[in-house]
Amino acid sequence: MLEPFAVKPIGVVRSSVKEPPMGGREGLESTIVVQDRWADALDGLDGFSHIFVIYWMHVVSEERRETTTHVHPRGDPRNPLQGVFATRSPVRPNPIGLRVVALLERRGNVLRVRGLDAIDGTPVLDLKPYLFYYDGVAESTVADWAHKPAEDSWES
Amino acid sequence: MLEPFAVKPIGVVRSSVKEPPMGGREGLESTIVVQDRWADALDGLDGFSHIFVIYWMHVVSEERRETTTHVHPRGDPRNPLQGVFATRSPVRPNPIGLRVVALLERRGNVLRVRGLDAIDGTPVLDLKPYLFYYDGVAESTVADWAHKPAEDSWES
Repeated sequence: MLEPFAVKPIGVVRSSVKEPPMGGREGLESTIVVQDRWADALDGLDGFSHIFVIYWMHVVSEERRETTTHVHPRGDPRNPLQGVFATRSPVRPNPIGLRVVALLERRGNVLRVRGLDAIDGTPVLDLKPYLFYYDGVAESTVADWAHKPAEDSWES
Repeated sequence: MLEPFAVKPIGVVRSSVKEPPMGGREGLESTIVVQDRWADALDGLDGFSHIFVIYWMHVVSEERRETTTHVHPRGDPRNPLQGVFATRSPVRPNPIGLRVVALLERRGNVLRVRGLDAIDGTPVLDLKPYLFYYDGVAESTVADWAHKPAEDSWES
């Protein structure tokens, strides 16, 4: 049950930001170029104002991911060390990134989005419609270090 | 850039539900048993009331995933065919499941959660804290077929 699986990029991020950090650019527009063979699988996605993008944070080395269990959240030593699963750090066993973005336009196999926290060249693994009745939990509470959004984020 | 990556389960779901469909069991409690080597990476996660669970919907055959671009949402033929990325169907190129759950308790390498839409034995790939200021988009809008939650869901 615990053997690895093969996950296949279905597309790639194109962004003006070429390397981390992203720098808290909520307003940043970028595009997702989906492989031609999966273009039709986007049909209907533009019926949704927001989508989840699931991507592979490919910059972090496997060695670092395999040996790191704790990090200072947001790379800030003033934040107490936390287990990597308690953070949104890219340093984690599987460097899977997750972000809700505004879907501005779909044209064929290309999506234009706003708010994607992923650098140019990032492989995209999956796209899902955002459904507030499943995905929005207004009454959720967070740890002390996480009360405010990061000032400078790349899966922060 | 588009070669496959190896994604490693970091744990497994233990649930009273042994096969799909899950049947809209928002109140269902289940557990996530994390591998011993990653137990410490959970430190601090219980500071959050809700977490994202990212899992591998292992029941769908690779052949079906590779050849399906459109599905009737929620398996209901009354819903018009949509591209798989416009749905939460488990039939998608990478069968990555995503759910926000309530974290009830962490004890060592075991998490007790409520609302996880994954059957017993499902491999878990990642866990992330839920941060409403990133992950909650109250003003989001959806396609007509998706106005209400599914009555019977397994990544619906």
